[in-house]
Amino acid sequence: MGMIGGGEGAFIGEVHRMAARLDGKIELVCGAFSSNPKKSIASGKKLFLDTNRIYGTYQEMLEEESRLPEDERMDFVSIVTPNHMHFAPAKLALEKGFHVICDKPVTFTLAEAKALKKIITKKKRLFALTHNYTGYPMVKEAKAMIASKKLGKIRRAIVEYPQGWLSQRLEATGQKQASWRTDPKKSGKAGCMGDIGTHAENLLEYITGLKITEMCADLNVFVKGRKLDDDGAILLKLSNGAKGILFASQIALGEENNIRLRVYGEKGSLDWSQEEPNSMVYRMDNKPKQILRVGVGSQSKVAQSATRLPAGHPEGFIEAFANIYKNFAYAINDYNQKGKVKSEYLDFPSIDDGIRGMQFIDTVIKSSKTKQKWTKF
Amino acid sequence: MGMIGGGEGAFIGEVHRMAARLDGKIELVCGAFSSNPKKSIASGKKLFLDTNRIYGTYQEMLEEESRLPEDERMDFVSIVTPNHMHFAPAKLALEKGFHVICDKPVTFTLAEAKALKKIITKKKRLFALTHNYTGYPMVKEAKAMIASKKLGKIRRAIVEYPQGWLSQRLEATGQKQASWRTDPKKSGKAGCMGDIGTHAENLLEYITGLKITEMCADLNVFVKGRKLDDDGAILLKLSNGAKGILFASQIALGEENNIRLRVYGEKGSLDWSQEEPNSMVYRMDNKPKQILRVGVGSQSKVAQSATRLPAGHPEGFIEAFANIYKNFAYAINDYNQKGKVKSEYLDFPSIDDGIRGMQFIDTVIKSSKTKQKWTKF
Amino acid sequence: MGMIGGGEGAFIGEVHRMAARLDGKIELVCGAFSSNPKKSIASGKKLFLDTNRIYGTYQEMLEEESRLPEDERMDFVSIVTPNHMHFAPAKLALEKGFHVICDKPVTFTLAEAKALKKIITKKKRLFALTHNYTGYPMVKEAKAMIASKKLGKIRRAIVEYPQGWLSQRLEATGQKQASWRTDPKKSGKAGCMGDIGTHAENLLEYITGLKITEMCADLNVFVKGRKLDDDGAILLKLSNGAKGILFASQIALGEENNIRLRVYGEKGSLDWSQEEPNSMVYRMDNKPKQILRVGVGSQSKVAQSATRLPAGHPEGFIEAFANIYKNFAYAINDYNQKGKVKSEYLDFPSIDDGIRGMQFIDTVIKSSKTKQKWTKF
Amino acid sequence: MGMIGGGEGAFIGEVHRMAARLDGKIELVCGAFSSNPKKSIASGKKLFLDTNRIYGTYQEMLEEESRLPEDERMDFVSIVTPNHMHFAPAKLALEKGFHVICDKPVTFTLAEAKALKKIITKKKRLFALTHNYTGYPMVKEAKAMIASKKLGKIRRAIVEYPQGWLSQRLEATGQKQASWRTDPKKSGKAGCMGDIGTHAENLLEYITGLKITEMCADLNVFVKGRKLDDDGAILLKLSNGAKGILFASQIALGEENNIRLRVYGEKGSLDWSQEEPNSMVYRMDNKPKQILRVGVGSQSKVAQSATRLPAGHPEGFIEAFANIYKNFAYAINDYNQKGKVKSEYLDFPSIDDGIRGMQFIDTVIKSSKTKQKWTKF
Repeated sequence: MGMIGGGEGAFIGEVHRMAARLDGKIELVCGAFSSNPKKSIASGKKLFLDTNRIYGTYQEMLEEESRLPEDERMDFVSIVTPNHMHFAPAKLALEKGFHVICDKPVTFTLAEAKALKKIITKKKRLFALTHNYTGYPMVKEAKAMIASKKLGKIRRAIVEYPQGWLSQRLEATGQKQASWRTDPKKSGKAGCMGDIGTHAENLLEYITGLKITEMCADLNVFVKGRKLDDDGAILLKLSNGAKGILFASQIALGEENNIRLRVYGEKGSLDWSQEEPNSMVYRMDNKPKQILRVGVGSQSKVAQSATRLPAGHPEGFIEAFANIYKNFAYAINDYNQKGKVKSEYLDFPSIDDGIRGMQFIDTVIKSSKTKQKWTKF
Repeated sequence: MGMIGGGEGAFIGEVHRMAARLDGKIELVCGAFSSNPKKSIASGKKLFLDTNRIYGTYQEMLEEESRLPEDERMDFVSIVTPNHMHFAPAKLALEKGFHVICDKPVTFTLAEAKALKKIITKKKRLFALTHNYTGYPMVKEAKAMIASKKLGKIRRAIVEYPQGWLSQRLEATGQKQASWRTDPKKSGKAGCMGDIGTHAENLLEYITGLKITEMCADLNVFVKGRKLDDDGAILLKLSNGAKGILFASQIALGEENNIRLRVYGEKGSLDWSQEEPNSMVYRMDNKPKQILRVGVGSQSKVAQSATRLPAGHPEGFIEAFANIYKNFAYAINDYNQKGKVKSEYLDFPSIDDGIRGMQFIDTVIKSSKTKQKWTKF
Repeated sequence: MGMIGGGEGAFIGEVHRMAARLDGKIELVCGAFSSNPKKSIASGKKLFLDTNRIYGTYQEMLEEESRLPEDERMDFVSIVTPNHMHFAPAKLALEKGFHVICDKPVTFTLAEAKALKKIITKKKRLFALTHNYTGYPMVKEAKAMIASKKLGKIRRAIVEYPQGWLSQRLEATGQKQASWRTDPKKSGKAGCMGDIGTHAENLLEYITGLKITEMCADLNVFVKGRKLDDDGAILLKLSNGAKGILFASQIALGEENNIRLRVYGEKGSLDWSQEEPNSMVYRMDNKPKQILRVGVGSQSKVAQSATRLPAGHPEGFIEAFANIYKNFAYAINDYNQKGKVKSEYLDFPSIDDGIRGMQFIDTVIKSSKTKQKWTKF
Repeated sequence: MGMIGGGEGAFIGEVHRMAARLDGKIELVCGAFSSNPKKSIASGKKLFLDTNRIYGTYQEMLEEESRLPEDERMDFVSIVTPNHMHFAPAKLALEKGFHVICDKPVTFTLAEAKALKKIITKKKRLFALTHNYTGYPMVKEAKAMIASKKLGKIRRAIVEYPQGWLSQRLEATGQKQASWRTDPKKSGKAGCMGDIGTHAENLLEYITGLKITEMCADLNVFVKGRKLDDDGAILLKLSNGAKGILFASQIALGEENNIRLRVYGEKGSLDWSQEEPNSMVYRMDNKPKQILRVGVGSQSKVAQSATRLPAGHPEGFIEAFANIYKNFAYAINDYNQKGKVKSEYLDFPSIDDGIRGMQFIDTVIKSSKTKQKWTKF
């Protein structure tokens, strides 16, 4: 694997690297870690890379690597730059024949996302998007339970993603994470809704198997001087007639990173939250509620294959993230060897999820500006 | 105290009686417990009442009691009938000179509620409405904390009241509680929103001290054949520029009675839920979250006076309910003796809360029917 | 009901009164609330008693009441004085022909407890002891589950009762509760173990149906100048070969009143704690753990009859306490009318539980002083 | 790093490897993964090792690796075999000049542990023991808080480690983990107390900074036919006069792996459990309890350096384990380059912890067999 972005001071780059390392199937062999070549080299050295495979720019990296013999060059590229810097390197990597795994949201604009899909299709490369919350075993178990009708027809879903870290104007202090995320030039049309609202949307659709069909959005900018939304609530219509609520906030003071989904069906309901990711509440009608736990009792094959440890050994954020990398690595291996991929390895977010995320952002913005109640997705 | 309604088979009548008894300040002395005189008498006997003070109709009771010498007749009336039967007995009781405590929502229509207020004012009687959730010590503590600016300016409030007991068509089985609550002739315009949505609205406004100014409602009838809403989600604008979400549902399968309020301000946030009523989460910016507990540490005077036991002795629903009765009893005592009431005893929901609740129902219904996003409250 | 003790400043007296009032089956008609007649009268007036039934001493009360016509005099006596003042009034009350309900531990010494049993038997009166934790619906459910073999053979039980209120030398401030509880002349041989250890012992034996057969106790006095144990841990052997741990402490700083019992059997395990009294964890082998909740699903008859509200309406300490009073009231009614009592009404702690508690105290003290590991109970 | 043990079917070997990989500071370069050479080679291939560095025996590995040039050979050895196979490879590795990290308990007997210490001292090599629970950020924070007197003098500590996986006779099915752990020839004198009791002992002493000075142990074999203890409870005296309870069980049916420590001091108390490893309860006298969370607020340097992600991103078992590997890697780096190690890198369990663990096992067994209450540690 080669990496674009993720130099010193970045947060998500090292998360990707830990996730890639965890299972011993992926090796970081090269990188262009910063748009500043000096920084890139300094970062690469700290990662024990061969100096001749630390590149000053991503263009150089993709060019040079593509010239290496097939068994020497990197197998795929990991893109961990801010949103506005996703499309160009992804495009070039694909054109040079590399598979790509990319942080979310997939691109800066919907048009870019659609263009990217065309390139992926044309170049027949694999592409993964790190909507990492779908990597938790209990999230996969939830999806499997709903798919197997354990909840009956879904009526109501509530997804929320409250954070409090932007309650004050943190970007004014120069804090790197806050700065680009609140800057329309780097983050895109939406702030909170782009950064974490898309995670919520993806989690909801992943677990329920339903699609958002219409929405009624109310976005807010609570911190003075901020240009992008830092909070919002959305009423949802879902594809089977179910209704939903999506709440995301960066000013929910005191909240850490508390993404949570509740789903109520005609026969049962589920409640999962990242604060206790190894547990999930499962309720049936007038029966004791059950606390499903990773590794306890019979669970779906997908949940099991996303689990590394016996019951009672808590697995966390990195492990969930690593499940995307692991599946992607297995998929590349299959694809490179057999030209096709076992379906179970394709359990990672795709370019279609990325396009959907960009459409979500566009629709949220559109809905928040209209006086009409419902806006079609 | 005399009671109207609450005969055998009723749920809320006995709750009112337990609440009234708990502190030994109120004695049930008479009642008209059913529109069926036989039932009324059977119910009254079980309550050890003098047979000559068990009445066949509320009219009879109010007539007879008003003729008794002042020191013998009941001091006030408690009305615990279904919604459509609140106004007439309340009106008559007030006209006969009795103070009244009444179950919520206060009346069947907004017009009745406004009419009732006029009578209360004219007759100079005390009136309490049993929005009982405001009786919990931690709810009072929350209100006091926000009033004293501990949270700073409020930005976001989320109130939810999920229940699952109407997930199936329970009313078809003849179950008494389900039958009248789903019947527009007895329940009023709204189902879920009238029964529990008003509690959520009242809790939100009580704790935050803010008013709902506009709303965008999406009501649903999920169970086939049901005439009134059994689920709904509402986006809210609040009086200081804050935003809110109100979610209430009777089809949230597996949920018991989980009313919960979260409030996020510029300096702090609170999270209270009835499932653990003696605890409340209090968060500040980048500090350990605190679990406030009834009776632990220094708490507001209102919270203290709503607490009967030392820390660690759980108090529940009946105790909270009893706090309304207790304050009402103290208020009547003051009023009867001095013609005025100490302000701390007036900490119980009033006719104005009742009117607001009826307006809430009207606005929710109006908003749910329009294609326009926002509807003024 | 007449009450002995429980005047102004007392804690447990008002708890007994609230418990007695809650269900409307018991009326406080007289009392001797303090050894100081003036205080007694002042207390009685606040309770709205007829002044001629507020007595200056318990002897006077028992004498006078016994002379009243049968349908006017009190039906039973509630004794809520400190430990050293239980025996004499209980004895006299029984001799005067009254049924007695008494706070725990039953007496000051084991000899008194045994003497009391003889009187009860001789006078054929009913006697209840307020080991109130056995009044919780979930505690009754636990007992019923174990009795019906849902857990299989019990192997291990852990009961704990940590409090922190005596972490400092509170008795030095004159605080009433602390003063008598730490005074060997009023409290008895044991401090912590007498006050709350007996509750733990009673809860363990009540729920499991097992008896403690041997123990190995380690008692401590952590606060300087205190004369009685304020903390202790005990290893237990139980009657079927199971093992146990009993931990009780008054210096577990920050703990409120957290009595908890865990029971592990060959087929299942249970975990109940007063901090969430309406829930209980039930685990089976390699299955999702279940959260049993009061009122949800099918529960034992005893749990149901100890429940006043539908699921999701939290019931607390007073309600549990009231379940003892309620059963005692029903039992007296049966006994007075038919000379015998329906077995389900006898579900309240008895003089035998009281004797066992006194034996427990004696054995704990003995064990804590010996160098031998095990001491027979 | 080279690994001894941990071939296919093993559990803990892959945990060590994930822990070693996570931070990108350690590379697995060779191994002798099984006493069966074929298995060893199969395992090594799956780990993408060069075939010439997959060894058939650990002796061969240590011999061959020690002959490689210094910059090519492994830096240290990781020993992940069952208990009875720790000493011999550790001894040989040290003698060949390699640093060693070893799973716990450190050896089969106390004599071996002492012998190992002599070799370590003589050969001047670094040695780490994977008492992994000390790797959690909140465990480190607890230690730091107690060291800085935030709790005042410690009075009472309760450590428990309940598991339920050996509730039935799992070893009879041939399950690998159960088989060696219940076999005195592979596990040593103690079963439950060796396997998890030592973790509990280590956690207690690590966090409190106190030493166990005397104990009173009660061990049990609940499952018929089992030769080693599968459950036990121990009363403890601690070095400053504090008292403790240690409970460990493998037959606590339904429990997963729930190691938990509570510490009560004169000024504060702490409660940490692995089921929610990123939280810790901190209580002070009559103040709201605080929930300390990894990454929230100001925390000790040791806790911070054990944390990889911002607040709200749950870290788990592997991350805690990896903290031992990370510190060990930094220590080796320091030691190899400068001949000494920065003290903060020495925050990993040592041979002294290992000896203490073996003494603990010996004392537990001795205490459980005597009729005397207290046995000196």
